[in-house]
Amino acid sequence: MPDRPQDLTALQVAIDAAEAVRGTTSPNPPVGAVILDAGGVVVGVGATAPVGGPHAEVMALRAAGSRARGGTAVVTLEPCNHTGRTGPCAGALLEAGVARVVYAVADPNPTASGGADTLRAAGVEVVPLTGTELVERGPLRAWLHRQRTGRAHVTWKFAASLDGRSAAADGTSQWITGPAARARVHAERAKLDAIVVGTGTVLADDPWLTARNPDGSLAARQPLRVVVGEREIPSNSRVLDDAAPTLVLRTRDPHEVLAALSDHPDVLLEGGPHLAGAFLAAGLVDRVLAFLSPVLLGAGTSAVEDAGVGTIGQALRFHRESVETVGDDLLLSLTPNFPSPSESSEKNHTQGAH
Amino acid sequence: MPDRPQDLTALQVAIDAAEAVRGTTSPNPPVGAVILDAGGVVVGVGATAPVGGPHAEVMALRAAGSRARGGTAVVTLEPCNHTGRTGPCAGALLEAGVARVVYAVADPNPTASGGADTLRAAGVEVVPLTGTELVERGPLRAWLHRQRTGRAHVTWKFAASLDGRSAAADGTSQWITGPAARARVHAERAKLDAIVVGTGTVLADDPWLTARNPDGSLAARQPLRVVVGEREIPSNSRVLDDAAPTLVLRTRDPHEVLAALSDHPDVLLEGGPHLAGAFLAAGLVDRVLAFLSPVLLGAGTSAVEDAGVGTIGQALRFHRESVETVGDDLLLSLTPNFPSPSESSEKNHTQGAH
Ligand SMILES: NC(=O)c1ccc[n+]([C@@H]2O[C@H](COP(=O)([O-])OP(=O)(O)OC[C@H]3O[C@@H](n4cnc5c(N)ncnc54)[C@H](OP(=O)(O)O)[C@@H]3O)[C@@H](O)[C@H]2O)c1
Ligand SMILES: NC(=O)c1ccc[n+]([C@@H]2O[C@H](COP(=O)([O-])OP(=O)(O)OC[C@H]3O[C@@H](n4cnc5c(N)ncnc54)[C@H](OP(=O)(O)O)[C@@H]3O)[C@@H](O)[C@H]2O)c1
Repeated sequence: MPDRPQDLTALQVAIDAAEAVRGTTSPNPPVGAVILDAGGVVVGVGATAPVGGPHAEVMALRAAGSRARGGTAVVTLEPCNHTGRTGPCAGALLEAGVARVVYAVADPNPTASGGADTLRAAGVEVVPLTGTELVERGPLRAWLHRQRTGRAHVTWKFAASLDGRSAAADGTSQWITGPAARARVHAERAKLDAIVVGTGTVLADDPWLTARNPDGSLAARQPLRVVVGEREIPSNSRVLDDAAPTLVLRTRDPHEVLAALSDHPDVLLEGGPHLAGAFLAAGLVDRVLAFLSPVLLGAGTSAVEDAGVGTIGQALRFHRESVETVGDDLLLSLTPNFPSPSESSEKNHTQGAH
Repeated sequence: MPDRPQDLTALQVAIDAAEAVRGTTSPNPPVGAVILDAGGVVVGVGATAPVGGPHAEVMALRAAGSRARGGTAVVTLEPCNHTGRTGPCAGALLEAGVARVVYAVADPNPTASGGADTLRAAGVEVVPLTGTELVERGPLRAWLHRQRTGRAHVTWKFAASLDGRSAAADGTSQWITGPAARARVHAERAKLDAIVVGTGTVLADDPWLTARNPDGSLAARQPLRVVVGEREIPSNSRVLDDAAPTLVLRTRDPHEVLAALSDHPDVLLEGGPHLAGAFLAAGLVDRVLAFLSPVLLGAGTSAVEDAGVGTIGQALRFHRESVETVGDDLLLSLTPNFPSPSESSEKNHTQGAH
C-alpha cells in the first residue's frame, strides 16, 4: 500500500522534532512522534527526552491529552515494547486509546522490538511506512549504524576549493567556504558526540573545535574534542582550553580511535588530509560531507592525502546521497561505494589465487 | 510587460534549433526562429544556415509558407536590418505578412541592428523579451562575447575527483568521470572551433582530441586542435594525425594563443593543470565547466597548478551559473567573479601607492 500523504506530512513534523533533540538522547535514539486526533488534526508533537526521561510517544501523548483517543500516532521508530527506565511506549499508546499507529523504521533492537505486534494484537491498526530513507539518513542515522555494526558512525567533513585544496599555498584557509556553510558546520558540531582531528591540524591552525552559535558564543552542548597522533601538542593549544572536554590519543591507528570512542556513537572527523586519508584507507568513513566552494587556488594542501590509492582502478568511489547549495557553496553528502578493506580481503580469499 | 508563456515556449524551440546548428554558422551567429500562425500554432522552425545561406528567420518563413501571414515570429536574436550576403530578415518578415515579432537578445552589431525599428515603423508589433539569459548563456554565448570584447570566448573544462585530482598517483586518469559526462564532452567538442592543450598533456596522455560519436566514430565536424608550449612533441603524436587539423604554437603566452585563434571565436581549453593555471592567471577564462566525480584519490595531479594565488585573499572566486547531475557526476558551470589582471592593475593605479 502506498504511503498516505497525511502520514508523510506528519512524519516530516516528527523528523523535525527528532532532529531538534539529536545529540541529547544518548544512549536512547532521537525519536519524534506526532499525534493526530480522529479528524486528522495535529494535537501533539513530542521527541525523546534526555536519558531517564520519557520517550517521544509519551511526550506527544502528554501534549495531546484526551484528544489522542481514536486518533493516529506517527512515529519515526517503531514504538518499543519493553519496560526499561520508562514503561513501554506500546502500552502508553493503548492506554491513550490511539486507533492507528504509523511508523517509519522498524526497531532493530531485539530487546525493544515487538511493539507493532503488541499493538496489532490489541486491535490497533499498525502501518509501517515504505518511505523511511528520510529517517534512516536523518536523525536515526548514527544510532541505527551503531545498532547494526557495533561501532560509531563516522562522518568526514571537509571544505575545499573546486581544485580540492583545503588551504592556500601559504597555509591560509579562512575562509574558503562562505558564512552559510560555516554556520551549518557549527550547528552540526553541536549535535555530535565527538570531533576528531590530527595533530597536524592542531599544530598548523590551533583551532578551538568548539560548537559556536551564529553570534560567536559557545553552543549549550559541546562535543568531545579528540586529537590523534604521536606528536605532543603544546599545552597552550586552544583545543586544550576548558570550553569543552578534550581527549588526546597518541596513536596512529583509526581503529584504536573508534575503540576509545565507544561511548560516542556520532563522530565527526574534521581532518586534516592525512588523518582523513588514514580513516578512508581503513574503511572507517561512513559518510562524507563535502563543502565545495566556487573557488580555484592552484596551489596548497589537498583535502585528502595518502588514502591508499595508487592507480585509477583503486579510486574510492562514492554514492551521492544528496547535493544542495548552501549559500555560494555546494554541499554533497556521499556514502562509500567500495568494499571496506576487511570485506575485500575476504573476497580475495574466497576467490583463491589468481 | 511580463513575457507571455506561449512566447517563452516558442523561444525554447528556437533555442533548441539554434543549439543544433551551433558551430556551423561562423562568422554568423547561430540563431533560431519559430513562426506561429495567427492562431498560435507552430508552422515553421528554422536556424541559421552555413555562411552564404539564409538566416534563421528566412529558413522558418520558408517552412511556414503562407501560414505566416498574420502570425508571430519568435527569434533568439533581433532580426537584422542590413542587406549582407542575404537580404535583411526584417524585410523578409514584412513580406511574409507577419503581424508580431518577439526576440530575446538585441543585436549588438552596429551594422546589422535596427531591425526592430524598421519592423515597428511598418506597423508590426515588436516585443523584446525580458528572459534572455537562456540565449545569452546558450547558443549566442561565444558570438556575443566576441562582439563585446573582440576576442574568443574561452571555456576551461576539467574533470576531477572531489579532492581535485585529474589523474591518480601513477598518472592514470581513465576514467575519473562516467560515460554520460564523457559523451557530453564529445558532443560539446563537435560544436566548438578549437580545443587547446599544453605540451604536457600531449606528452603524458597522447590524446586524439577529436570529437567522437557515442559509437566511437569521428563526428562530422572537428574543431581545430591546438598544442601550446615550447617543447617539441613527437611527430607520431596522435594529435598530429589527419583526423582533424592541428596547430602547434611554440609559445607560453596565453594572449598569443588567443591572437592566433582570431578566426576561432569558441575555444575549449582542456588543460592540463599548468596551461589552465596560466590562462586563469591571465584572466582569459570566461567560463569553467567542472565535471566533479564522486571519487577520492588522495594523490595525483591536481586540476590546476600555479594560477598565481599565494594566499586565500587572492583566491579566484567564481559565480555559479548552474549545477546539474550528469550520470553519477556533477557538472558546474561557473563564470569569473574576480577582476582580470588588467582591470585590477588599473584599480591599483588609481588608488596610488600604499
Ligand atoms: N579545509 C578543511 O576541511 C581542513 C580541515 C582540517 C585541516 N585542514 C588543513 O590541513 C592542514 C594540516 O594537514 P595534516 O595532514 O598535517 O593534518 P592532520 O591530518 O590533522 O594531521 C596529520 C597528523 O596526524 C597524525 N596521524 C594520526 N594518525 C595518522 C595516520 N594513520 N596516518 C597519518 N597521520 C596520522 C600524524 O601526526 P603524528 O606525527 O603526530 O603522529 C600526522 O602528521 C592544515 O593546513 C589545515 O588548515 C583543512
Ligand atoms: N582531467 C582533466 O581534465 C585533464 C585534462 C588535461 C590533462 N590532464 C592531466 O594533466 C597532466 C599533465 O599536466 P601538465 O600540467 O604537464 O599539462 P599541460 O598544462 O597540458 O602542459 C603543461 C605544459 O604547457 C606548456 N605551457 C604553455 N604555456 C604555459 C604557461 N604559460 N605556463 C606553464 N606552462 C605552459 C609548458 O610546456 P613547455 O615546457 O613545452 O613550454 C608546460 O610544461 C596529465 O597527467 C593529464 O592526464 C587532465
